[in-house]
Amino acid sequence: MAKGLPKRAEDFSAWYNELVTKADLAEHSDVRGCMIIKPYGYAIWDNMKSELDRQFKATGHQNAYFPLLIPKSYLSKEAAHVDGFAKECAVVTHYRLKNGEDGKSVVVDPEAKLEEELIIRPTSETIIWNSFKNWIQSYRDLPLLINQWANVMRWEMRTRLFLRTSEFLWQEGHTAHATKAEAITEAEKMLEVYADFAEQHMAMPVVKGWKTETERFAGANETYCIEALMQDGKALQAGTSHFLGQNFAKAFDVKFADANGKQEHVWATSWGVSTRLMGALILTHSDDFGLVLPPKLAPIHVAIVPIYKGDEQLAQISEVANKIKSELQALGIIVKFDDDTKRKPGWKFAEYEMKGVPVRIAIGPKDLEKGTVEVARRDTLEKNGYEQEDLAPKLKALLEEIQENLLNKAKSFNDENTTTVENWNEFKSVLENKGGFILAHWDGTAETEEKIKQETKATIRCIPYDTIEEEGKCVYSSNKSTRKVLFAKAY
Amino acid sequence: MAKGLPKRAEDFSAWYNELVTKADLAEHSDVRGCMIIKPYGYAIWDNMKSELDRQFKATGHQNAYFPLLIPKSYLSKEAAHVDGFAKECAVVTHYRLKNGEDGKSVVVDPEAKLEEELIIRPTSETIIWNSFKNWIQSYRDLPLLINQWANVMRWEMRTRLFLRTSEFLWQEGHTAHATKAEAITEAEKMLEVYADFAEQHMAMPVVKGWKTETERFAGANETYCIEALMQDGKALQAGTSHFLGQNFAKAFDVKFADANGKQEHVWATSWGVSTRLMGALILTHSDDFGLVLPPKLAPIHVAIVPIYKGDEQLAQISEVANKIKSELQALGIIVKFDDDTKRKPGWKFAEYEMKGVPVRIAIGPKDLEKGTVEVARRDTLEKNGYEQEDLAPKLKALLEEIQENLLNKAKSFNDENTTTVENWNEFKSVLENKGGFILAHWDGTAETEEKIKQETKATIRCIPYDTIEEEGKCVYSSNKSTRKVLFAKAY
Repeated sequence: MAKGLPKRAEDFSAWYNELVTKADLAEHSDVRGCMIIKPYGYAIWDNMKSELDRQFKATGHQNAYFPLLIPKSYLSKEAAHVDGFAKECAVVTHYRLKNGEDGKSVVVDPEAKLEEELIIRPTSETIIWNSFKNWIQSYRDLPLLINQWANVMRWEMRTRLFLRTSEFLWQEGHTAHATKAEAITEAEKMLEVYADFAEQHMAMPVVKGWKTETERFAGANETYCIEALMQDGKALQAGTSHFLGQNFAKAFDVKFADANGKQEHVWATSWGVSTRLMGALILTHSDDFGLVLPPKLAPIHVAIVPIYKGDEQLAQISEVANKIKSELQALGIIVKFDDDTKRKPGWKFAEYEMKGVPVRIAIGPKDLEKGTVEVARRDTLEKNGYEQEDLAPKLKALLEEIQENLLNKAKSFNDENTTTVENWNEFKSVLENKGGFILAHWDGTAETEEKIKQETKATIRCIPYDTIEEEGKCVYSSNKSTRKVLFAKAY
Repeated sequence: MAKGLPKRAEDFSAWYNELVTKADLAEHSDVRGCMIIKPYGYAIWDNMKSELDRQFKATGHQNAYFPLLIPKSYLSKEAAHVDGFAKECAVVTHYRLKNGEDGKSVVVDPEAKLEEELIIRPTSETIIWNSFKNWIQSYRDLPLLINQWANVMRWEMRTRLFLRTSEFLWQEGHTAHATKAEAITEAEKMLEVYADFAEQHMAMPVVKGWKTETERFAGANETYCIEALMQDGKALQAGTSHFLGQNFAKAFDVKFADANGKQEHVWATSWGVSTRLMGALILTHSDDFGLVLPPKLAPIHVAIVPIYKGDEQLAQISEVANKIKSELQALGIIVKFDDDTKRKPGWKFAEYEMKGVPVRIAIGPKDLEKGTVEVARRDTLEKNGYEQEDLAPKLKALLEEIQENLLNKAKSFNDENTTTVENWNEFKSVLENKGGFILAHWDGTAETEEKIKQETKATIRCIPYDTIEEEGKCVYSSNKSTRKVLFAKAY
């Protein structure tokens, strides 16, 4: 069944790995930790990109492009940043190869050694702030609202397709502002954009909050994040937005003259989401039969499969199918009529199920007689007969219903798997037996945070916006606490 | 005047360099040969990308993404390819930095040396064909039509913004086919897509043709190209499409089973255009006052500048301007109403002229009285009064006229600067005194091609599709020739 996908309940990890391969989303390359994003996976990512890009532009941002390579010395300029990012990097040391002595192979030319090594960007704050220095002179140049779509590289030892890869694709926003308040507003605004995208497009509910100091981005004064809950009860950080204070402005000496001519350092933010969202999307909705996609991100909304014997029947069915196809297309629905004669209907059914196409239509000889089609929903796996007449608006409504159903289902799952605990035994028991998000009081110290992590592998995912200030006792140390925070084991 | 841009007639090269900077298109980074594409430049590139991507998808191609890094040994697998590409590459030798002994700097960790060095892709044939090996088993998997949007790197010694940079952005199509004929058809089809894009969107006429064997892509059996003529009389290779035969299929052992189960090597193509097109666009249309953009690629079609004294007048003008803006937007025209109070009208006029905005509208107090606006065309620099009434459809037509005018102007320039020569003295004289494209008979030998290049720096840009087979004598050797070919000095 389902081309032998392992069951989630039996081996969640194997299920994910096989699903990514069998739904033709991505695969490992021969280069350690680097993935190949296959056309179907890339089409989903492209849909994510388009919508995010639209929202970035609607909030006043412009795209630009900065160099892939960063001089090694740049990384040392911001003290916290270098500790966080300088370590596991791909390092370019030479710029030329030459023929080997065997005449066949190529070898690195020792003559072509760089004076200063270059790092493949793990993130671009340093190279971008080095440019901002020249771009910003006066308050007239602010705010500067830049986004970059790029590949980045962090040398990871243990990799998983989409979730953790050495090279990944992402966008990184980098903005400069005249005031602290404006920069904080920007960082908060972009987190809202991410949260809205996650819920409205990925059908993935998220918890918005602040990272603890320990979990902050290297070089940030505050890190805002969205955290999502996966079907195995583990959390996944889906996006972060950072208020960087004046740290990078000071490191790269970026000042502006205000309206009175006074020189001030600018205030900064950065924010990013990556192809990791692909992992989040898969882990949120998919089932034992394969991928399940929210219609707003699906490369194909409706697949039409003809069931026929002989060319004549195929021709008759094709006529109906093409009519339906153009009616659906007129409503902006992306349709694939799969009349490939090299594959059988059963193969096609399994294929579209595995690939998470939201709606599949089958048309056979009986449907021709009765003026009907069979409609299968991918989210619930329900099948129903529909009249051919007026089918397009009904399917448009069905796609909207599927989008909504996926969000509601994920919301219910999150609600059911978010547990408030009052003491340490309860904490450990919930974590071990149920998993999911745990809301508990924490004394606010990095020491306690670290001990909980050591003992249970659970980390503080965030301090949620929507928990309240209240008196309480830390679930671990029993010291005073002012607020519940969100714990979970995480990807 | 024009913020002091050098005149083309006086110093074409300085004019280009300053224009790229002053129109805010791109700048050099601190990393040798790597450019920063600034927001305005990137917006133009984004428009190019969108249209090309649309055309690639319309011709059946899908996007995918392959690793940035290529194992060094891959380059040696295709013999011709390695000679062409393996030399000037960025080489990754290590994967970790560590703190230096001074406690402040970071140094390369000698323990973290890679077993096999990795190359930053100069082009992706090798890594892609290494994957195709797993993607292709049967004729059912063919044709495989893949495109990738990516950054690539070729370590260039002499760089110029957009025209020749170490890192550049591009797309690379890579396709696999069951038959030779189908692969050739594909390579030809994609050249037509490029030529159509150049003419219809960039308003840049091109000559379509074949490269000589010497000028072919490393690993190709045939290279098709489009060549454009710049205002200084030099040619620019704007796009190439390669028929790769079975070279990469054999190097990476990519076979398919045909309908009868027989194993065959597949046939391949690759094709690409890059941010070099930005250079071509600038060099084709721009003038001594700055950038000139064809409306189809302009990030802003119409800029509206209010001319006012005091807040009240600005409010009155804004009302008219916003009405015009929404009428224009309703026709799909991208409008910027520049009511920034920090800048004066004169500054704004110079800015939009420098940035090549196709149409600029000025609205002053007299226009309010008379119901008029002043409309300035960037291409001809003409200014005319227009009635406010029914302005939108008139400007839509004007934008179409500008697009057409730019193409016609460039076509006339190409016609005037394409010279057929019959003998060597004429060849040298035209090249020296007039420049441009030279059509001349060539004996078909690499030796003559090389000698002409040595003596004059002119190269064979292509063997144009539209020259005819005819008997003639080589302009250099006087040996037999069967066809005229296109010579020029080139970027």
